[in-house]
Amino acid sequence: MTLPVPVPESGAAAFADWSARGCVAVEQALSALLPPADRAPARLHEAMRYAVLGGGKRVRPLLVYAAGELTGAPAGALDAAACALECIHAYSLVHDDLPCMDDDVLRRGKPTVHVAYGEATAMLVGDALQALAFESLAGTLGWGVPAPAVVEMTLTLARASGSIGMAGGQAIDLESVGARLSREALEDMHRRKTGALLGAAVRLGAACGRAPDAGTLHWLAQYERAIGLAFQVVDDILDVTGDAASLGKTAGKDAEQGKPTYVSVLGLDASRQLADTLLAQARESVAALGSPARRLGEIAELIVLRQS
Amino acid sequence: MTLPVPVPESGAAAFADWSARGCVAVEQALSALLPPADRAPARLHEAMRYAVLGGGKRVRPLLVYAAGELTGAPAGALDAAACALECIHAYSLVHDDLPCMDDDVLRRGKPTVHVAYGEATAMLVGDALQALAFESLAGTLGWGVPAPAVVEMTLTLARASGSIGMAGGQAIDLESVGARLSREALEDMHRRKTGALLGAAVRLGAACGRAPDAGTLHWLAQYERAIGLAFQVVDDILDVTGDAASLGKTAGKDAEQGKPTYVSVLGLDASRQLADTLLAQARESVAALGSPARRLGEIAELIVLRQS
Repeated sequence: MTLPVPVPESGAAAFADWSARGCVAVEQALSALLPPADRAPARLHEAMRYAVLGGGKRVRPLLVYAAGELTGAPAGALDAAACALECIHAYSLVHDDLPCMDDDVLRRGKPTVHVAYGEATAMLVGDALQALAFESLAGTLGWGVPAPAVVEMTLTLARASGSIGMAGGQAIDLESVGARLSREALEDMHRRKTGALLGAAVRLGAACGRAPDAGTLHWLAQYERAIGLAFQVVDDILDVTGDAASLGKTAGKDAEQGKPTYVSVLGLDASRQLADTLLAQARESVAALGSPARRLGEIAELIVLRQS
Repeated sequence: MTLPVPVPESGAAAFADWSARGCVAVEQALSALLPPADRAPARLHEAMRYAVLGGGKRVRPLLVYAAGELTGAPAGALDAAACALECIHAYSLVHDDLPCMDDDVLRRGKPTVHVAYGEATAMLVGDALQALAFESLAGTLGWGVPAPAVVEMTLTLARASGSIGMAGGQAIDLESVGARLSREALEDMHRRKTGALLGAAVRLGAACGRAPDAGTLHWLAQYERAIGLAFQVVDDILDVTGDAASLGKTAGKDAEQGKPTYVSVLGLDASRQLADTLLAQARESVAALGSPARRLGEIAELIVLRQS
């Protein structure tokens, strides 16, 4: 992971080092979790590895690791939860890129999965990655997470991914092409489409360790809501101001497809102000949570101040 | 559910009554599990209900209920597990019918989901149903299934659904169009594509109750393998000998698409003999398991002797 902006040192290890180690950890864990590319059905497994490995900002895994520091969670459990989140995220990108959805040919600077392997395989890649996510999450039991907490985490991930979460947000997105959305409707769509899974990353990471007290849960909830929305607001800003080379995907696509975005609904300046407000809310939560929440704070800065 | 062949009475309640009650139970449980059709995103929820409710032979739910009788499992837990299996099965049908896969327009006598709601919505319906399956399974905890057993059930369902199970079988199916498969390769494909989920239905139903002893597990495993394969052999026979009206789907489709089937690999007579052999293996298991396995035995007869 390359950091687009300098992040101030805080504590012993710099954030850049910490996040680089997190990216290596989740890459290794994903590589071990995904079936080898020569295991039958080989083409499917090769395509699953193509979809997941070697790219992406790994924001959700980093949120898992950062939240795990709040509750002293074991590293193996965090790896398993981080893989689960990243498998869900990767499957959603593969399906979202298909011709019947966004019809995108470029993702993370590479041809999308359906361009490289065909539509039918791309659909099965997404389907199999969703199953693998739940398999990985169940594996946290072997790392000392109590079984009732594992079941609770499964519920959290299922709801964040399903029709009232991410898949539901994409359905609203589909119905909104060419429509004029209110700010409230846009926020509802994005809370589901992007916010639900980012929030789940924070909750699952924390749930791998000691049970958090009520105060911690309160501030984590505010943090989740703030970064979940900020991520999408900044995405919408970058879709207008970014270029394909640094984004690793086609820029200006949302506007071209007539999709409502924060920029189209609020304008560019108000969108930037909203991102700043959300960052302030995240900072407030992090300050209340104290020094174990340091990495969560740094990820919030990264989400809002990134250039790609 | 209408029974295509008379099944002999055994014990107090006839099988026809028992299976009709099972179909009503799972229909009610699915209707309660699926979000209401007027809840946002309404079109997605309407399409999910269209895909799942009001049709299908409900073979997997009946296997869950029948296996639950072996271990004295509570009805609420069996309903939740039955819903999980049926959501996975329904999602696989919705995705399998899409133009990039089998391109089928008729399912259970109705237009397929993508014909009725469009391809993008159909893809999201499948994605959301998979998440809902894991949500439902996690709900068995509330019915007294111990948390470690719930986690084990989640692993079983994830593996049966993913790249080494159902989705993997579909990938092999894709690669096999126009190919000449050996009998072993065909069996491997079907053990994944159909057998894995039918087997999971038996295991999940049993796992909702008392932990089975080693002997029970042995005979259940033989039963699972036999009916998992028999189901597909009979499907292939019916694809040749059945008609669209009684099948509720397009007949002769596999042969037309150049897909290898038991009939194309072994011939019709040898396929019928294989189905008989598998039924004999299922009967042997049921005899060894004794009277609590009565319903499992009746379902095996139904799977092999059905006409649609």
